[in-house]
Amino acid sequence: MSLEMFFRPKSIAIIGASDHPLSIPNRIMTNLMEHGFKGPIYPVHPSKPFIRNFTAFKSIEEVPGEVDLAHVIVRNTMVPDIVRACGRKGVKGVIINTSGFKETGDKGAALEAEVKRAGREAGVRIWGPNCQGCMNSDPEAPLYANFTFARMRPGHISICAQGGGVAELINNHLAESGIGFRMYASNGNACDVSIPEIIAYWNEDPGTRCIVLHAESFADPGEFLRVLSRVDKPILALKSGTSEIGARAVSSHTGGLMRGDASTDLIFEKAGVMRFRSAQEICEAAQAFATQKPPKGRRVAMLTNTGSLAIMATDEGVPLGIEMPDPSEATREKLKSTLMGIASLHNPVDMMATAGPEHFAGAVDALLADENFDLLLVTMVTPFFVDTEGVAREIVRVASAHEKPVLLEVLTNDRWASTLEILHKGGLPTFYFPESAARAVAALCRYAEMKSRTRTAPRRFTIDAEAAAGSIAQARDDGWLPPRAAASLAAAYGIATVPERRAVGADEAVAAARELGFPVVLKAEAEGLLHKSDVGGVAVGLADADAVRAAVDRMSTALAAHPKLTFLLQPMIKGEAELLVGATAIPGVGHSVAFGLGGTLVEIVRDVRFCLAPVSVEEADQMVRSIRAFPALTGARGRKAVKLECLTELVQRVGQLVTDHPEVVELDLNPIIASEADAVAVDVRVRVERGR
Amino acid sequence: MSLEMFFRPKSIAIIGASDHPLSIPNRIMTNLMEHGFKGPIYPVHPSKPFIRNFTAFKSIEEVPGEVDLAHVIVRNTMVPDIVRACGRKGVKGVIINTSGFKETGDKGAALEAEVKRAGREAGVRIWGPNCQGCMNSDPEAPLYANFTFARMRPGHISICAQGGGVAELINNHLAESGIGFRMYASNGNACDVSIPEIIAYWNEDPGTRCIVLHAESFADPGEFLRVLSRVDKPILALKSGTSEIGARAVSSHTGGLMRGDASTDLIFEKAGVMRFRSAQEICEAAQAFATQKPPKGRRVAMLTNTGSLAIMATDEGVPLGIEMPDPSEATREKLKSTLMGIASLHNPVDMMATAGPEHFAGAVDALLADENFDLLLVTMVTPFFVDTEGVAREIVRVASAHEKPVLLEVLTNDRWASTLEILHKGGLPTFYFPESAARAVAALCRYAEMKSRTRTAPRRFTIDAEAAAGSIAQARDDGWLPPRAAASLAAAYGIATVPERRAVGADEAVAAARELGFPVVLKAEAEGLLHKSDVGGVAVGLADADAVRAAVDRMSTALAAHPKLTFLLQPMIKGEAELLVGATAIPGVGHSVAFGLGGTLVEIVRDVRFCLAPVSVEEADQMVRSIRAFPALTGARGRKAVKLECLTELVQRVGQLVTDHPEVVELDLNPIIASEADAVAVDVRVRVERGR
Repeated sequence: MSLEMFFRPKSIAIIGASDHPLSIPNRIMTNLMEHGFKGPIYPVHPSKPFIRNFTAFKSIEEVPGEVDLAHVIVRNTMVPDIVRACGRKGVKGVIINTSGFKETGDKGAALEAEVKRAGREAGVRIWGPNCQGCMNSDPEAPLYANFTFARMRPGHISICAQGGGVAELINNHLAESGIGFRMYASNGNACDVSIPEIIAYWNEDPGTRCIVLHAESFADPGEFLRVLSRVDKPILALKSGTSEIGARAVSSHTGGLMRGDASTDLIFEKAGVMRFRSAQEICEAAQAFATQKPPKGRRVAMLTNTGSLAIMATDEGVPLGIEMPDPSEATREKLKSTLMGIASLHNPVDMMATAGPEHFAGAVDALLADENFDLLLVTMVTPFFVDTEGVAREIVRVASAHEKPVLLEVLTNDRWASTLEILHKGGLPTFYFPESAARAVAALCRYAEMKSRTRTAPRRFTIDAEAAAGSIAQARDDGWLPPRAAASLAAAYGIATVPERRAVGADEAVAAARELGFPVVLKAEAEGLLHKSDVGGVAVGLADADAVRAAVDRMSTALAAHPKLTFLLQPMIKGEAELLVGATAIPGVGHSVAFGLGGTLVEIVRDVRFCLAPVSVEEADQMVRSIRAFPALTGARGRKAVKLECLTELVQRVGQLVTDHPEVVELDLNPIIASEADAVAVDVRVRVERGR
Repeated sequence: MSLEMFFRPKSIAIIGASDHPLSIPNRIMTNLMEHGFKGPIYPVHPSKPFIRNFTAFKSIEEVPGEVDLAHVIVRNTMVPDIVRACGRKGVKGVIINTSGFKETGDKGAALEAEVKRAGREAGVRIWGPNCQGCMNSDPEAPLYANFTFARMRPGHISICAQGGGVAELINNHLAESGIGFRMYASNGNACDVSIPEIIAYWNEDPGTRCIVLHAESFADPGEFLRVLSRVDKPILALKSGTSEIGARAVSSHTGGLMRGDASTDLIFEKAGVMRFRSAQEICEAAQAFATQKPPKGRRVAMLTNTGSLAIMATDEGVPLGIEMPDPSEATREKLKSTLMGIASLHNPVDMMATAGPEHFAGAVDALLADENFDLLLVTMVTPFFVDTEGVAREIVRVASAHEKPVLLEVLTNDRWASTLEILHKGGLPTFYFPESAARAVAALCRYAEMKSRTRTAPRRFTIDAEAAAGSIAQARDDGWLPPRAAASLAAAYGIATVPERRAVGADEAVAAARELGFPVVLKAEAEGLLHKSDVGGVAVGLADADAVRAAVDRMSTALAAHPKLTFLLQPMIKGEAELLVGATAIPGVGHSVAFGLGGTLVEIVRDVRFCLAPVSVEEADQMVRSIRAFPALTGARGRKAVKLECLTELVQRVGQLVTDHPEVVELDLNPIIASEADAVAVDVRVRVERGR
């Protein structure tokens, strides 16, 4: 496997070795030794014959044995030559801890490019530069090729991070809370070995059960999306620096609706990566994924000996999407025969603080056997007057006889260390705070939900490719398509638009209105006139010729500054809801497609969902159903239900349009009038960028 | 002070004492002894001459010395007699740990009432029943009158909770993380000594710097509001059981907009109590309040030696309302001369991992001296190659020379225990996760914001009390006021409503429309016809007599099922925004007043804010300004700005109306048409309940 030289090297050189106890190379040597690296370590130093008690070598080429991996801690400008020397020696990979590269500006970036080239030419894979390094906790091949301080504790979670600080934060926490890690990768500037490459490697590692990822920016979002979509282990991601990403938000209407870091969410969602908001939450979830199989669904049974803890877990979990049905009738009968009379048989099932091992055993068994539940959360305190070790043993015994995940929240302290140890040795995760346990449970449920979604290939609609190309060719210098071209592009993709006529002056406008039939809508058009309704450029419900004439006069006066003022007329369309579908290019990724409430309320309501194009029918359906206003689309409060298929199809067609035409950087169908019969776009705006 | 017998008793009896090591009375004796209670302990047992090594007494009355406090752990039905005996003995307070009272149903509630009566008659204050007890960590008077297991560690946070489980969860966490508590109260059913009484007691306790409160329900929301409004120490509250509260949500439109537990939030907000969503968050905040003075504002300086940690803290803190301006020019100059060249001088100020004591000292001093900031958060890692103890000493030294709060996030483990100890001894709180630190910082900022708000007494508008009473007297049997009475009640309180006429049949309707002037709005009215627009009972923009006639005909057909159909006509009102003001009675508390986006979009948009009546001008202003759609009211996107004073006045007038008339249980002004000049209620609905 391609990254073996980094995670399972047989020998390691330290180029730039040092005796100084507080230096990075010295600490790396200490870490390698203290954590049991099993091969030779070769310090390389230009003059010293030995470093600490190790024989040193003047150059990498003088090292007698084979070298799989070399740490490089030398002045940044020396790095390219060192890499070439490593190539001559046959070193397979180098970890460049040295900084002073891309992170410092243009000059550093040029140096980094040279390093990358040198590596490629010499056949040496490069880790970093400006990085911590990597670690492997496999007891067969322990490796602490890193200068940090977290204890190495073998576990099943592999951690990959750009930002060394956050990786260390997570790793150190997992170590101190007894959970540990499997492999660890902090590869800084990542000029060669990439994060997706590392994750793909771990997907094949039998010791890795789940992957924790921290990223501050995507070097190549396309590669990320492509590679991660094929990984079948749970990937839990933390994306920080949301404010930085926010600055990239595009300026158009629909684009402006996206939260700062929404494109990250879209990439994660498309790749099946679970996003978390904080380091602690990702640690909690990782603990659950590292010990429990994902559940089949999100129906959670809670069992407790302290009601208030279960209530807190419920408060946290329900808004995160867990479901808490009551036990089945049969289960309730079982519980009645097992528990004391005062227990609550609803969910959470409350056994009171005096419940002992036999009560827990019976209740855990009954709840895990119940078809109503996909997983079990036990929230408990360890009272002085209960045999808590017995309780722990019974929970482990019964849980192992079932397939469903079991998690615990235990209010206790180190007087009950042996109780916790029984649970942990039995493979069950425990949490201190009810909310932590509930979030971990919710993460398992969210994963189950994500994996259960059917994913079909996006449908290809028959379109008029020639007409579409012709429409796009009409783009003006500023990239905007003239309104007529925008409408015909939509039509070429089978998107229904409102019939329209154009007119110059009142007479033509009245004639056009007669053709369309009253009442009509009148819109002023002129170059650079974008948000028409804001400047009095839109009149609706014009019932007769006089009304049209009056409106034309009013707009002509109000917009006299626009020399070439023309007018667009459309019939008044009635429907049940005003919606929008839009698309925005995301550089390096593709396009996000938006669906939501439309009309002039867009910016106030912000009831919009996004998805990366192309959009499958399931994705489109999910978008339509997940806006807050969805109940209004299905006929709530006396409204008629709109035809949802028209909306999901519209979303898919827009997804196909921008996939076929990556040069479209911005597309807005807003408003779309949806009715029982159809969904018609009233306004179409399209902007293209040449050379995309 | 009234609760001295519970928190500073000089002698304690254990009524129902037991030798059994796993029994509650035995554990209480152990806890009292192990934690250094300084007075005599008198076991009371009907037959045994001694319990453990203590002389036992047959009854409380046989105890030789004075008894301040007695634990009662006997069969529930025996409790009233025991309380009476305590009264005869002169016991000042009893803690009834025994359960089997109100929590078990009607029979238990009757027994509890008897206990309460017995206590009152005998002059004995009662704690509980069905409770843990109380604790005092004051080294002068240590008291562990409780059967739980959390270590007693003196601190400055006092904890009060209904649910013993949650109190123990918080207390045990604070103990294990070295923060500790001052006093602890878990009083279960609270039949006599109430939570507000305990909090008022702590407000006078010099050792209590902040109060943590957990409540599952309010016994007396009015008392809670009254007492807590007068407490001047920070009160941090955790309210669980939100789903239970949700069930109480009232059925009306405006009431239906309140989230399940919104009334709790309103009570807390009115009383100046800070609400937290989870036990961990409240512990984090308590740690900050127990060590730092509240800041003057919410402008946070961040200083870091690891950029990614500060970024995570920023990501968490900014959405919670912290502000992060850049350092002043003068500060940047100071930082430049102090730090290495590679540091970032923006906020967060990044000194890189190699920064030593002198760099930290200079930067902390410069940032704390900067007028741009109200407090400082340092996020740091403890690298092997830095004198971290020196860093800690410098931070403590410089922080103590300034008045502003300083908090730290430290990524470390127990190898650096001495570094953390220097910080803690220096009075500075440290957190492990950046998000924890950011939440604690945000809590301090939120408190500063809350305290800085001017609070004036609600204004009293001149009203027509007689007309109001007359209108309310017209309520129908179902409590609803007839539309005309509702409108005149509004008018009596100076609330502008749309002129209206009523008509039976098309001819009358046309005549009324002529009086009002075209175009008009027509609304069907009949008994039991509530959501008119849902059933085709509303027509707008009727431009002439024919249109009115056609609409009357259509509605008469559609609503033929309603025998006494009449019609309401109003002139079409034009404005910039449709808003709502409403009020809903909250039993035992008063009324919540609502302000938000109105019209038919109400339920989709849910852009509404609430406040308990009466509403001061500052509160009304805050409500109006905090709806999401507020920018639209100030003239965003080409709209005209509406007259905000009209809106704030409307909210205050409604607050006065429901305060004057508690029998009003539901009031809706929706829509209110707001314009540049005024705000006019188009529809007024009022329901009263007799006997309130």
